[in-house]
Amino acid sequence: MSGSLRAVDIIRRKRDGGTLSPEEIRFFLERYTVGELPDYQASALLMAVFVRGLSDDELGPWTQAMLHSGVVVDFGDIPGAKVDKHSTGGVGDKISLPLAPAVAACGVRVPMISGRGLGHTGGTLDKLESIPGFRVDLSMDAFRSAIAELGIALIGQTAEICPADKKLYALRDATSTVESIPLIASSIMSKKLAEGIDALVLDVKHGSGAFMKDLSRATALARAMVAIGESAGKRVSAVLTDMGQPLGEKIGNALEVEETLDVLRGAGPADVVLLTVELGAEMLLLGEAVRSRDEGRARIRDVLQNGRALEVFRACVVRQGGRPDALERLPRARHSHVVRAPRSGFVRAIDTESVGVAAMLLGAGRATKEDPIDPSAGIVLACRLGDHLEAGQPMATLCFNDVARAASAEARFLSAYTLGDERAASPPLVTMRIVSKGVDSAA
Amino acid sequence: MSGSLRAVDIIRRKRDGGTLSPEEIRFFLERYTVGELPDYQASALLMAVFVRGLSDDELGPWTQAMLHSGVVVDFGDIPGAKVDKHSTGGVGDKISLPLAPAVAACGVRVPMISGRGLGHTGGTLDKLESIPGFRVDLSMDAFRSAIAELGIALIGQTAEICPADKKLYALRDATSTVESIPLIASSIMSKKLAEGIDALVLDVKHGSGAFMKDLSRATALARAMVAIGESAGKRVSAVLTDMGQPLGEKIGNALEVEETLDVLRGAGPADVVLLTVELGAEMLLLGEAVRSRDEGRARIRDVLQNGRALEVFRACVVRQGGRPDALERLPRARHSHVVRAPRSGFVRAIDTESVGVAAMLLGAGRATKEDPIDPSAGIVLACRLGDHLEAGQPMATLCFNDVARAASAEARFLSAYTLGDERAASPPLVTMRIVSKGVDSAA
Repeated sequence: MSGSLRAVDIIRRKRDGGTLSPEEIRFFLERYTVGELPDYQASALLMAVFVRGLSDDELGPWTQAMLHSGVVVDFGDIPGAKVDKHSTGGVGDKISLPLAPAVAACGVRVPMISGRGLGHTGGTLDKLESIPGFRVDLSMDAFRSAIAELGIALIGQTAEICPADKKLYALRDATSTVESIPLIASSIMSKKLAEGIDALVLDVKHGSGAFMKDLSRATALARAMVAIGESAGKRVSAVLTDMGQPLGEKIGNALEVEETLDVLRGAGPADVVLLTVELGAEMLLLGEAVRSRDEGRARIRDVLQNGRALEVFRACVVRQGGRPDALERLPRARHSHVVRAPRSGFVRAIDTESVGVAAMLLGAGRATKEDPIDPSAGIVLACRLGDHLEAGQPMATLCFNDVARAASAEARFLSAYTLGDERAASPPLVTMRIVSKGVDSAA
Repeated sequence: MSGSLRAVDIIRRKRDGGTLSPEEIRFFLERYTVGELPDYQASALLMAVFVRGLSDDELGPWTQAMLHSGVVVDFGDIPGAKVDKHSTGGVGDKISLPLAPAVAACGVRVPMISGRGLGHTGGTLDKLESIPGFRVDLSMDAFRSAIAELGIALIGQTAEICPADKKLYALRDATSTVESIPLIASSIMSKKLAEGIDALVLDVKHGSGAFMKDLSRATALARAMVAIGESAGKRVSAVLTDMGQPLGEKIGNALEVEETLDVLRGAGPADVVLLTVELGAEMLLLGEAVRSRDEGRARIRDVLQNGRALEVFRACVVRQGGRPDALERLPRARHSHVVRAPRSGFVRAIDTESVGVAAMLLGAGRATKEDPIDPSAGIVLACRLGDHLEAGQPMATLCFNDVARAASAEARFLSAYTLGDERAASPPLVTMRIVSKGVDSAA
């Protein structure tokens, strides 16, 4: 069958807006991954896909081809539901850190494979690595035993998982074919489906701090990912959430672990708690540990209040290389600087991406993949959308070790805030939910 | 300036349908030609150009960047106008062979750099090389002295001319980005403008044997090429001509040289003579050797009738390595087979591309760039559109050395002809003329 397939014909068909067959998609991606097709043919196809799109009929086979380019984890011998969460990324989005132990504390296993931060968004791996001794590079055996015995493991992507995605992603980065909904959706879903999960909750961000700024593109991405999950026979819920302001009060790796500990002690900012509860309830519902979202919400709130989630998180830290007192020894920046309101007024709008860039400038993030990170650097916010500030009142505290970085970060931070005389309405945090077949949207 | 340019930004702008600046175009094509940008970025840009197109404002700088990637011939020290003709290629299109010596015999110099055939269309170089001893690989010095002393030279593209085009063309072939009007137009025009000509006549084919089957796409290609020539300050005329049937009676390399000799002796098929006269008159007008096309037509007819054009052709053959009797020693195929009409009727339509493929199957052309050519193989036609045939009457004679090739070629040839009971109108050979500024369309 594939003997008669030719890369140029496949590129031509997509170029002209046609639909590729599953055989054509498999042929191209398999041959490309093993090096039998050159980068220049793949980049031509990627550009054609970028412009012409992929139909739902193509998206499933495309994702499956990427998924099967490497190892697919099989947790079939470990009882109980395995459910993960993925976020498209935002500023201050540390939700994975309180969420995974909370869900595991409720009896649903969470095999979570995360990424690093780039640009204005942070990465779960970087946050975890700010915990002294914490290792994200577990072997596949250690990953499996952690899931079997503790119900939670938080690791980075291994070389065995989705090599096609690694190769394609590097090529997309160099050929301006990143911001394509089908390519983003298949990249995310292939990695998540390789984790051996039964169900997946997607946190799809929109707004000024999100990768997809507008709701309609975020919705299209959510639909594409849910469709892929459905075609793979998985239960998937996508929750659309607002990233029109940073999530929580703390931005920066160790600072976000501190805020995580607040949440796991039954405190923490209302928005972080709300999103942890919402996404946790969805994971428990998809993992069939509860019959309704309200039951799920109550369970998550319980384990945040009674210390069970914190206990699981501590056990996870120790299991992954942290000392027992690691969470009491988080790195702290040597310097801080209070940013003050330049005038009186209400916080009317926040360019959240610029707040993320300000944190990056302090050392909390990377401008390029090779940049080092300062785990202690970041920003502690003192105001939210809708708050009223007097001139000179603190808006935030910048935390840093490199004094040379503070001035440009402060300027960038201040440029992000629009102050005005009228109070602006605060948008709801959770905008919409899109679910796959087999998930009760009303439960 | 170019220090801040980045390939990914240029790809992104074209991907999103934007217009590239001359600096961006120059940056990308210069860096790509010298190997500083990888093939995979170039193929992504080519696919974006394929889908989004290039505006007239981009087409000029794009062509100039390709043109200046290599040597640009300067004939400034040789007096008189230098004018070339380029055809987009067809079946039986040997017009360059009688045309170039006819125009040179009228005092306009013709520095003609041609290509080889691929697929169903023949190439001028292959036809010339069927003349025993004829060499198309003259040095640049020999090319110049032939133009200065004889007024004509017929050579192949050298490595020094338009290296960017060679590199891009190979990449387009492998990435399904060939059939793009701006990419075709800039590829043709960059090579022609590198020849050091003052003016150029383009024969843009349309119909079943042409690369551009429909008139509207052929017209768009013609307009794009005329616009490029205009922006380079050259006089350019594009003549749109019908390729709804093969040109002349003979298809195949040595056979087309034979037909050329007929035309140069004042005979030959009417369509070949007509097109030689039309294109020749246009070249003389653009070369300012005549004041009107009618005067040009008369001059060309004269040199075809009085033997002056043949004399120039013979001198050219000898100068480029042929023996004085080379034209009397053209190769002839050992075998021939008469194809007969399967029924009575009028020739209502010809799939000219299939006739070209039939000749290729006999050995006259190449399926891939590496295939050898049989210079003596080909087809001698015995009927044209509109002719009436009796069942069993000869339609053509197939000429070949390899007996194993005849059956599939005959089947392919017969499949090309639609016979019917009513006579079909014969289309005009010359459809339209598009001229640049400085060319009088009414002259």
